[in-house]
Amino acid sequence: MSEAYDIAVVGLAVMGQNLILNMNDHGHKVVAYNRTESRTKKFLEGPAKDTDIVGAYSLDEMVAKLAKPRKIMLMIKAGQPVDDTIDALLPLLDKGDIIIDGGNSNFPDTSRRVESLRNKHIAFVGSGVSGGEEGARHGPSIMPGGNAEAWPHIKDIFQSISAKTDTGVPCCDWVGDGGSGHFVKMVHNGIEYGDMQLICEAYQFMKDLLNMDNDTMSAVFAKWNQEELESYLIEITAEILAFKENGSYVVDTILDKAGQKGTGKWTGINALSLGIPLTLIGEAVFARCLSALKEERVLASKKLNGPTASALPAEAWVAPLGDALYAAKIVSYTQGYMLMAEAAKEYNWNLNYGGIAQMWRGGCIIRSAFLDNIKEAFDKHSDLSNLLLDDFFAEAVDRAQDGWRKVVAVGVTQGIAMPAMSSALSFYDGYRSEVMPHNLLQAQRDYFGAHTYRRMGGGDESFHTNWTGTGGDVSSSTYNV
Amino acid sequence: MSEAYDIAVVGLAVMGQNLILNMNDHGHKVVAYNRTESRTKKFLEGPAKDTDIVGAYSLDEMVAKLAKPRKIMLMIKAGQPVDDTIDALLPLLDKGDIIIDGGNSNFPDTSRRVESLRNKHIAFVGSGVSGGEEGARHGPSIMPGGNAEAWPHIKDIFQSISAKTDTGVPCCDWVGDGGSGHFVKMVHNGIEYGDMQLICEAYQFMKDLLNMDNDTMSAVFAKWNQEELESYLIEITAEILAFKENGSYVVDTILDKAGQKGTGKWTGINALSLGIPLTLIGEAVFARCLSALKEERVLASKKLNGPTASALPAEAWVAPLGDALYAAKIVSYTQGYMLMAEAAKEYNWNLNYGGIAQMWRGGCIIRSAFLDNIKEAFDKHSDLSNLLLDDFFAEAVDRAQDGWRKVVAVGVTQGIAMPAMSSALSFYDGYRSEVMPHNLLQAQRDYFGAHTYRRMGGGDESFHTNWTGTGGDVSSSTYNV
Repeated sequence: MSEAYDIAVVGLAVMGQNLILNMNDHGHKVVAYNRTESRTKKFLEGPAKDTDIVGAYSLDEMVAKLAKPRKIMLMIKAGQPVDDTIDALLPLLDKGDIIIDGGNSNFPDTSRRVESLRNKHIAFVGSGVSGGEEGARHGPSIMPGGNAEAWPHIKDIFQSISAKTDTGVPCCDWVGDGGSGHFVKMVHNGIEYGDMQLICEAYQFMKDLLNMDNDTMSAVFAKWNQEELESYLIEITAEILAFKENGSYVVDTILDKAGQKGTGKWTGINALSLGIPLTLIGEAVFARCLSALKEERVLASKKLNGPTASALPAEAWVAPLGDALYAAKIVSYTQGYMLMAEAAKEYNWNLNYGGIAQMWRGGCIIRSAFLDNIKEAFDKHSDLSNLLLDDFFAEAVDRAQDGWRKVVAVGVTQGIAMPAMSSALSFYDGYRSEVMPHNLLQAQRDYFGAHTYRRMGGGDESFHTNWTGTGGDVSSSTYNV
Repeated sequence: MSEAYDIAVVGLAVMGQNLILNMNDHGHKVVAYNRTESRTKKFLEGPAKDTDIVGAYSLDEMVAKLAKPRKIMLMIKAGQPVDDTIDALLPLLDKGDIIIDGGNSNFPDTSRRVESLRNKHIAFVGSGVSGGEEGARHGPSIMPGGNAEAWPHIKDIFQSISAKTDTGVPCCDWVGDGGSGHFVKMVHNGIEYGDMQLICEAYQFMKDLLNMDNDTMSAVFAKWNQEELESYLIEITAEILAFKENGSYVVDTILDKAGQKGTGKWTGINALSLGIPLTLIGEAVFARCLSALKEERVLASKKLNGPTASALPAEAWVAPLGDALYAAKIVSYTQGYMLMAEAAKEYNWNLNYGGIAQMWRGGCIIRSAFLDNIKEAFDKHSDLSNLLLDDFFAEAVDRAQDGWRKVVAVGVTQGIAMPAMSSALSFYDGYRSEVMPHNLLQAQRDYFGAHTYRRMGGGDESFHTNWTGTGGDVSSSTYNV
């Protein structure tokens, strides 16, 4: 049966094309489909030439070419197009067929689709795919979750095309129920926002306070990439800073207005909803928003004063700067893991935290040596409640904190914005505080809103103080603060 | 017609009761209703004794007592109860009758209700009411928005019971269409979160670094309340710190786990959705979340090290601390106003920014002398794009920044968490930066995701660099970062 293809991919933008080529490299027979015929033709005649990849020019034709249970992977724009494509596919499918959404869908949409398709006996999987075009082509990190019945049928394909750790473990495993695959990808992207912001702050510190040139900065990042900060983003930063076109550094020509497409915002919104202090990623998202206000910043730069920054000696400050980057990064991952743990509770998922670190170990944008330390922390204590409570990370932060504090303090004094590094430090100092000042805040809430408070060592009992002598003893129930 | 009452209030928790008593004081004839009969009875026999207030024991009875167009104000729990009560009222009402929701509804719910009731010829108003129990009783800040047809009918009642500025202007005016009244109230609450967090940070700084006792701290807040920081929250903080019961300071007995009921989170979520860098309020919300993790913090305090804080001389540090509080507060209001301006654009509201400052000038929790400066800034330039670009605020921050930087830097060095004060400073330094480091971030996005970038002075044209020499020229469309 020459027509029995293993999987179909819908959507031939760069990620779809590269995943197909990757699957083909690993011996999987793939049907390629795109709504626009010419795109399919161009792909078949171009990158897919001389491969086993075939095209289809209608969903009918595509479905007819597939072995059962059919496996159809959507690599299309998140949102309505996913629902529309599912609706178009449903009449063509049989019980037990599998649809995988490999785009960047918002996880509640995925949870909804898993349930609605389960009722129609179609196994739906929402899978995070990270690694950009290069990753998709040569080994991405893949985070599938949803209807677990699908997993045995897609496992071989997904694990064969995924990145591998140094020890050969695939950077792809089953994440969990419902929208958990897309949720974990969302947190990955949030962490990516944080990592990128931290690198930007280190770059600005070197450029504006240490007066370093691009090649020297590139060399620092290259050196850091040999040490505990070893990671893909540090590596490409070293390359970017040194990259020239026609004799000029490209990075210096680029406008400082950051774009974003939403997954960082989703992570922040989810953290606010679940009540988890994801401060570093929040600041990273907001920093991109601020960068986008370029025209207003140009005006403000002429109106608002600051201290005159005086150059610091690079030889004395590069090491503390690396410490600041490393310690803040530990806080960021700590917060990301806090969010995942709370989400697992809230949505009834059974997440494998060490496994997630392993999935992120290769292929994806945040891949780093550091993730091995996270994996090890969870291998030691699978019920670890917080990364900072692991010996390795507690000691790492302790070693780095002196430099971290020096760098943030000098940024504050000299007028260099370091929202992520300083926010992480505030979190660290708050987290390690047995007593925070929020007894006063609870007193204020009780004073003006009769919200009541608890007492130190007083158990669950609520108290209300008649602070003004006139408040009476009615309790507040409609007034929310 | 002795039964022609002016307005009915549904819901007799503290806010509802106090608003009714306030209305009665101002000569309005009010019908009081609560779902639980005994609560109505208790109110009538207690606080409402010897007033013109009457009770009703069914919605029918309540509606029958009202003059037309009927005015019914809901002071009940936000969410489903509001929809349920509206549904129960609808069959009893006539064209042109008015329902006002005075609870803390989320503004998109209010927008939806305004439209759905407009189709049923009922004028719906969503009104923020701030001031806690005291404000409700003696003059709250009231922020009504929705179906403008209702305004002439409720204006007298609302403006009579509202707080007044020093010059006698009511702290109540029509905010705008749809959910704008509840939106402005939401921003008010977010700002309140920020103000409270800033005060907590100042309190902790004095307590832990300046080793000040409660009475001395109280005196500092009382002094600040005579100066540019004059505000309700500073005033009550002075009272709270000095308040004793049975010879002990109550504030010292209160558990440092902050509660919250959602409006701060909503503000942060809205800011993320609209892409406005509302960093200070975001940090304030997250700080409450962190404070709630008391048990984990106690563990962490034993595991995680920090610098040993050494006492600083109070006489040298109180003034800079006041500067830090003041400058950070300016940033917080700046961010809140940025959010309102963006929301007005996004939701097609015509907001009166100076008027909003005036509504907040009295009665509400964030009332302060400072709001006069905001009103004046918008009186001078109604199209002011950012508070920091107003001369008064630019100069105020400039004067305060030296102390602000010193205080944050010493907090960073000595291990005292100051998430709001330091986040505000990062915002300030970012906002006044003609160039932020996000050229590098755009290069990273283009490197791994082919997201393209713009060039400095290069207009709207997008560029893509083939950083690795292998990326090809396909553009990214499914992969979002």
